Amino acid sequence: MKTEETNNNKSPHHAVIIGGGFGGLYAAKELGRSDVKVTLIDKRNFHLFQPLLYQVATGSLSPGDIASPLRGVLKNNKNVTVLLGEAIDLKPEENKLVLRDRDLTYDSLIVATGVKDFYFGKDEWEEKAPPLKTVENALEMRRRILEAFEEAEKESDPRKRRALLTFVIVGGGPTGVELAGALAELAYKKFKPDFRNFDTGETRIFLVEGMERVLPPFAPELSAKAEAGLRELGVTVRTKSLVTNIEDGKVSVRSGEETEEIEAETVLWAAGVKASGMGKAIASRTGASVDRAGRVVVEKDLSVPGHPNIFVIGDLANYPHQGEKPLPGVAPVAMQQGCYAANVIKKRLKNQTLPTFKYIDYGSLAVIGRNRAVVDLNFWRFSGFLAWIVWVFVHIYYVIEFDNKLIVMIQWAWSYFTRDGGARLITEKPSQR
Amino acid sequence: MKTEETNNNKSPHHAVIIGGGFGGLYAAKELGRSDVKVTLIDKRNFHLFQPLLYQVATGSLSPGDIASPLRGVLKNNKNVTVLLGEAIDLKPEENKLVLRDRDLTYDSLIVATGVKDFYFGKDEWEEKAPPLKTVENALEMRRRILEAFEEAEKESDPRKRRALLTFVIVGGGPTGVELAGALAELAYKKFKPDFRNFDTGETRIFLVEGMERVLPPFAPELSAKAEAGLRELGVTVRTKSLVTNIEDGKVSVRSGEETEEIEAETVLWAAGVKASGMGKAIASRTGASVDRAGRVVVEKDLSVPGHPNIFVIGDLANYPHQGEKPLPGVAPVAMQQGCYAANVIKKRLKNQTLPTFKYIDYGSLAVIGRNRAVVDLNFWRFSGFLAWIVWVFVHIYYVIEFDNKLIVMIQWAWSYFTRDGGARLITEKPSQR
Repeated sequence: MKTEETNNNKSPHHAVIIGGGFGGLYAAKELGRSDVKVTLIDKRNFHLFQPLLYQVATGSLSPGDIASPLRGVLKNNKNVTVLLGEAIDLKPEENKLVLRDRDLTYDSLIVATGVKDFYFGKDEWEEKAPPLKTVENALEMRRRILEAFEEAEKESDPRKRRALLTFVIVGGGPTGVELAGALAELAYKKFKPDFRNFDTGETRIFLVEGMERVLPPFAPELSAKAEAGLRELGVTVRTKSLVTNIEDGKVSVRSGEETEEIEAETVLWAAGVKASGMGKAIASRTGASVDRAGRVVVEKDLSVPGHPNIFVIGDLANYPHQGEKPLPGVAPVAMQQGCYAANVIKKRLKNQTLPTFKYIDYGSLAVIGRNRAVVDLNFWRFSGFLAWIVWVFVHIYYVIEFDNKLIVMIQWAWSYFTRDGGARLITEKPSQR
Repeated sequence: MKTEETNNNKSPHHAVIIGGGFGGLYAAKELGRSDVKVTLIDKRNFHLFQPLLYQVATGSLSPGDIASPLRGVLKNNKNVTVLLGEAIDLKPEENKLVLRDRDLTYDSLIVATGVKDFYFGKDEWEEKAPPLKTVENALEMRRRILEAFEEAEKESDPRKRRALLTFVIVGGGPTGVELAGALAELAYKKFKPDFRNFDTGETRIFLVEGMERVLPPFAPELSAKAEAGLRELGVTVRTKSLVTNIEDGKVSVRSGEETEEIEAETVLWAAGVKASGMGKAIASRTGASVDRAGRVVVEKDLSVPGHPNIFVIGDLANYPHQGEKPLPGVAPVAMQQGCYAANVIKKRLKNQTLPTFKYIDYGSLAVIGRNRAVVDLNFWRFSGFLAWIVWVFVHIYYVIEFDNKLIVMIQWAWSYFTRDGGARLITEKPSQR
């Protein structure tokens, strides 16, 4: 194996990509069918379509519906090797990446390890309010949601039942809004005929957001539409409100001077994220600066300052060269950056250059329950059923891009007409990492 | 709640069913829309279509595809209440069932708690050779199978790689045969283009069966067809062979006087089962006899001797009144017994009786990989593609009976034409019970 790991003039350029999310996978696909030898490293053996993870958490889809095995996606790109492993450090002076079980020499490195959930320093909240980043997180959320209803069916004390039927979602970004909408559909519609000892209409769903409106990155008119839509579905929206404490069965929410104590057995976290560990490693090994969220501030070609062969893309990158704010941590940014970094590498091998990276914003969209979404195409903002159709088609397009998951489309069509949720299983708690 | 749990002349007859498998669910459906008050108790919130569990273990289907939430299945049977709980004992003299968290009074009791896996007294093997009874078991098998291939991709020592690519399946009944066939499809076909550092054709799959042929309950000619089909797929079949030891990385298989040591990193258990705990409770509380596998020997109307209002059905029952051997532990027996017990209860309330239970055997079938199955309709035995089509339609018919899982049919059609497996995810190990 030694020759493969040594960079000599005879062996092809070796590009190592860390992370099989949107950024890393687009980079790998863009480098696929080229002369570059590519190694894609991920801790997991699948690409996860994270925007639909909330549907796993609420029992509409199975993990297999929104995850595509990386080897399957890249099976026809014979120059790409997938390696299950975890990157923990790098030695830029030797062009070496340190994995947990080996070192790997690269010619170019693309770091796309993304972000992890963040509890604003209150790590003890994680146990009480699970996040929604991984498949296991989603199954744990599903388990807690379904078990709360099961316990309510058995509970005769009205106060305890009320707490079992109270859900608090922390964070009013797209994940929180989508989760709240799906939970409302579940409680007020799908579950209606399922229970005998209580009315699922008693369910209370709180969505708590610190900013003055939900979906803060969207235009204010769409935030207002989303909030109205959620209220109509039965969600209690608390904006300008901070969760100040989470303990077993109780959440404290401060709005201005007042603190409300909500008795709730289920709290779901859809709030902060922070950079994955590779951000820190890059900063300490290259002297690159990181922002408050731990993201690496990159050059105009997405490389790390002083290290033109190391790129940071996607949620882990802070790209401040377009407007005053860094680009948001959304899938389209990661995809475009993945393609761009791959193209920089290909051009360089031909001694050519590429113009500065420029993000093309096609718009943003979020769904609020069945039939309703908000869409901002920059030149046109709209909401309601048409927006929902756009949302469905955009998501289907991307889900089936890598893996012909036509099945997801059919499943959606089916659920739409039957209001049936196919995956409402209480399965065992995955072991802690 | 007191009035509900007391049997007086004003309140309706209360039938309690333990277990939401094929037997219990058919009993509940049969009693649905009657005047009987029904409580269905299960530890899990879903009915599992166990005959397809091997497809979850080999990554073709997701758990949600073969599981139906019990509440959903019974939502229109307003006289049926689903209760999540675990039955641990009974007090027949008080007509009381003891659950882990409460007692429950019944007028009639149907026990359908089935069987659990059994390691012939070698409980320490369970850790090394996981069984295939629950969704969590199937996900654990899937994890081990997929991880073995991932490790093989990283392994450069040929001997270690050979062990990683060696799979031993213990037990040549339908589950073992179907698992071996699906694993062969995975290794020799689906995975072929996925790996770069080894040829998945190196994979070795051993199927070990103690009897003289695979599928012992089938006609000998079909066993021979199944064995030939498995060999053609690449499976090494060892009949008249016993697993005498399982340790990390090594399985000892004795055939006659010879013992072969197979170096294998993955061992899968598809062998013995024994009665669930309720069998023992019934025996000790009612004096009923149990057979060697712990199954309760029942009367001709499926009731427990001396206790006409307690029925034992499905895999937990030993029904010896038809021929010399007890009925086999298969889904059709459980379904027919569930319906029968429910009808006995309904008839009795009208002071009518039913003739003795009689099992109608429509035949048996097992699948051996894509395109090939064996079918025994008693009057007609056949194998090959036609048998596979019959197998597919029979399974689809029963999967969609409770829950309109049309999606499963489409998923199969899709996989059939694309040879694509949708759910090959390595997810975390569920915590131990």
